[in-house]
Amino acid sequence: MSVTGAAGFVAAGVTAGLKSSGRPDLALVVNTGPDQVAAAVFTTNRVKAAPVLWSQQAVRDGRLHAVVLNSGGANACTGPEGFADTHRTAEHVAAALGGRDGVEVGAGDVAVCSTGLIGTRLPMDLLTAGVTDAAAALSEEGGAAAAGAIMTTDTVPKTARYVDEGWSVGGMAKGAGMLAPGLATMLVVITTDAVLDAEAADAHLRKACATSFERVDSDGCMSTNDTVVLMSSGASGFRPTPHDFQAALDETCHDLAMQLLRDAEGASHDIAIEVQHAASEADALEVARSVARNNLFKCAVFGGDPNWGRVLAAIGTTAADFEPDRIDVAFNGVEVCRDGAIGEDRSLVDLSGRDVRVVVNLRNGRHGATIWTNDLTYDYVKENAEYST
Amino acid sequence: MSVTGAAGFVAAGVTAGLKSSGRPDLALVVNTGPDQVAAAVFTTNRVKAAPVLWSQQAVRDGRLHAVVLNSGGANACTGPEGFADTHRTAEHVAAALGGRDGVEVGAGDVAVCSTGLIGTRLPMDLLTAGVTDAAAALSEEGGAAAAGAIMTTDTVPKTARYVDEGWSVGGMAKGAGMLAPGLATMLVVITTDAVLDAEAADAHLRKACATSFERVDSDGCMSTNDTVVLMSSGASGFRPTPHDFQAALDETCHDLAMQLLRDAEGASHDIAIEVQHAASEADALEVARSVARNNLFKCAVFGGDPNWGRVLAAIGTTAADFEPDRIDVAFNGVEVCRDGAIGEDRSLVDLSGRDVRVVVNLRNGRHGATIWTNDLTYDYVKENAEYST
Repeated sequence: MSVTGAAGFVAAGVTAGLKSSGRPDLALVVNTGPDQVAAAVFTTNRVKAAPVLWSQQAVRDGRLHAVVLNSGGANACTGPEGFADTHRTAEHVAAALGGRDGVEVGAGDVAVCSTGLIGTRLPMDLLTAGVTDAAAALSEEGGAAAAGAIMTTDTVPKTARYVDEGWSVGGMAKGAGMLAPGLATMLVVITTDAVLDAEAADAHLRKACATSFERVDSDGCMSTNDTVVLMSSGASGFRPTPHDFQAALDETCHDLAMQLLRDAEGASHDIAIEVQHAASEADALEVARSVARNNLFKCAVFGGDPNWGRVLAAIGTTAADFEPDRIDVAFNGVEVCRDGAIGEDRSLVDLSGRDVRVVVNLRNGRHGATIWTNDLTYDYVKENAEYST
Repeated sequence: MSVTGAAGFVAAGVTAGLKSSGRPDLALVVNTGPDQVAAAVFTTNRVKAAPVLWSQQAVRDGRLHAVVLNSGGANACTGPEGFADTHRTAEHVAAALGGRDGVEVGAGDVAVCSTGLIGTRLPMDLLTAGVTDAAAALSEEGGAAAAGAIMTTDTVPKTARYVDEGWSVGGMAKGAGMLAPGLATMLVVITTDAVLDAEAADAHLRKACATSFERVDSDGCMSTNDTVVLMSSGASGFRPTPHDFQAALDETCHDLAMQLLRDAEGASHDIAIEVQHAASEADALEVARSVARNNLFKCAVFGGDPNWGRVLAAIGTTAADFEPDRIDVAFNGVEVCRDGAIGEDRSLVDLSGRDVRVVVNLRNGRHGATIWTNDLTYDYVKENAEYST
């Protein structure tokens, strides 16, 4: 159902010709109201692509009419000319949508998202023609096409839907991680017909991202283009409690984040690193990330090796509060490390399935957190060595 | 010439049977004096192997008589029993050397270094028998054998020698990085016959390591066992100026560090990341390390792709002082990025050779630094996926 899974939204996905493959590459999502509430979170990378710089401004007033997304080029590191291209894209979307449903649309009501190679200009004639086509193709059934048009190295489109009594949430995503995506930027658009004010939308979105996309750490690299947009049409006329809306948004974001993880480039295992009994949640996250980003650990999982020594070596690089000789580590339920030393027989561990769960018990407090990552494989190297050549 | 390249040292390398391959696996380096000055630096990983915990204590008085090193097992994460094994090894070395040259030797005069798999106990009967053999084989020509016996996944032994008028420095190393070695721990022993006091030895060693081993960042992972030991016999009777000795030690450490880099597991390129015109040396190092640790960048170099966009995306994750639109990036002399945007034609870059030089000009100050790393290859994944299985 994707982004048209909530009432008050139309969408389209078309082929503008930005991708050499000739596959769909331009998506448009339009909020038909009555409300046009919006919030967004962006990459914390200080090298931000032109569309991120633009969209940060566009959403500042808590209002968006539409989001246009292109694959086939990230429009990052393209200088003032690249920023002008983004501006022109937003202007073109506004012009194409103006008058539709009797609504005035300005460029400042349009967020822009781009994904693909860094450091190349977009072919603006193709892009603007694509926007015209997409505006003509908008429909309440367009969500699936939109989700398909934002794919880059994704092997499947990612969509989600959450339905409550009288209101719903829809969403689409592309990429493989958030604060730490693969070469593919992560772009997410979430829609809802629940009635929501802008301030609440922002708070709900930040909270949901912090425990979903921000905890998927596929390869430790952070994109220049990552964007998550939430739009509310209020078309249901229903105002859920903050608790209920947060739960719906959390579930939608978690669902999409797990789809990103499962489609990570070249990966053969999905790995959950669960840290238990840390002195603080920050400690738990730091420890979990140190393991998730350790190349030696990730290679070991690829090789089917429950190498707890590499887990301990990773933990040892952190500033978290722990005693090395109190740490327990389990791989898929087998406690191969106890008291920071040799535990159960490692040959009891079965890593043949796709899902791997590593539990690190610091035995040092009451806090916990989970980070999801992938293994490091031949195919990861292959995809990322060959992407732009 | 290795560690016996300086007067006042004898060494040996023997096969104790710790390695299943049956190759040499135990080295002994003994300072025959007249001085027994020593200094050492160790991994900053908080999960330290038993031999590191032991040797930190042994060198605290600025004095060592011998260093014993074994491959075939890291003796890390082995609990109190593993520490007892290290203690017993040092006792055995002291007993084997006691009375030799009329010198009393205590276990506290013996540093212990181990390398190999984490989380397995050492076969102590084999190890102690090997120590006895090594003590019997000690000679002024034993440096090469010692360097061979500490190899793990190394494909070549690493040795260095620096000769000045009347005094000299020798050294051996194994591994592939310091603060960030591959699965192989880095172990280094440096000897000199220059006259040196313990305080100066410590200061010289820390300074030399900071600009050599600590700037080789092969894969961002930090071992539990890394150790660099410097021993001075004073046998030349010559006391060089601090400046001259620092220069000799710097050159020896740099030489060994570059040998480690060139032998990094599975790598096909040696990459120097040189950051120029940073606001501080710390900024330059942070920026260079962010690039050196970026898997996407490292895969791109493997693929022969001068992907400057990934360089900028890596820089953007740092807290260094810079403006994104003032950064220039050159690959092997071709300035593919200017002012944070598209520069010279990337097709002009030739990455077919083993050496790659990436120059990042922040245009924001007077400081600079270089970090050396390797590319991320199929063979890196293969070696690290198969190591312990």
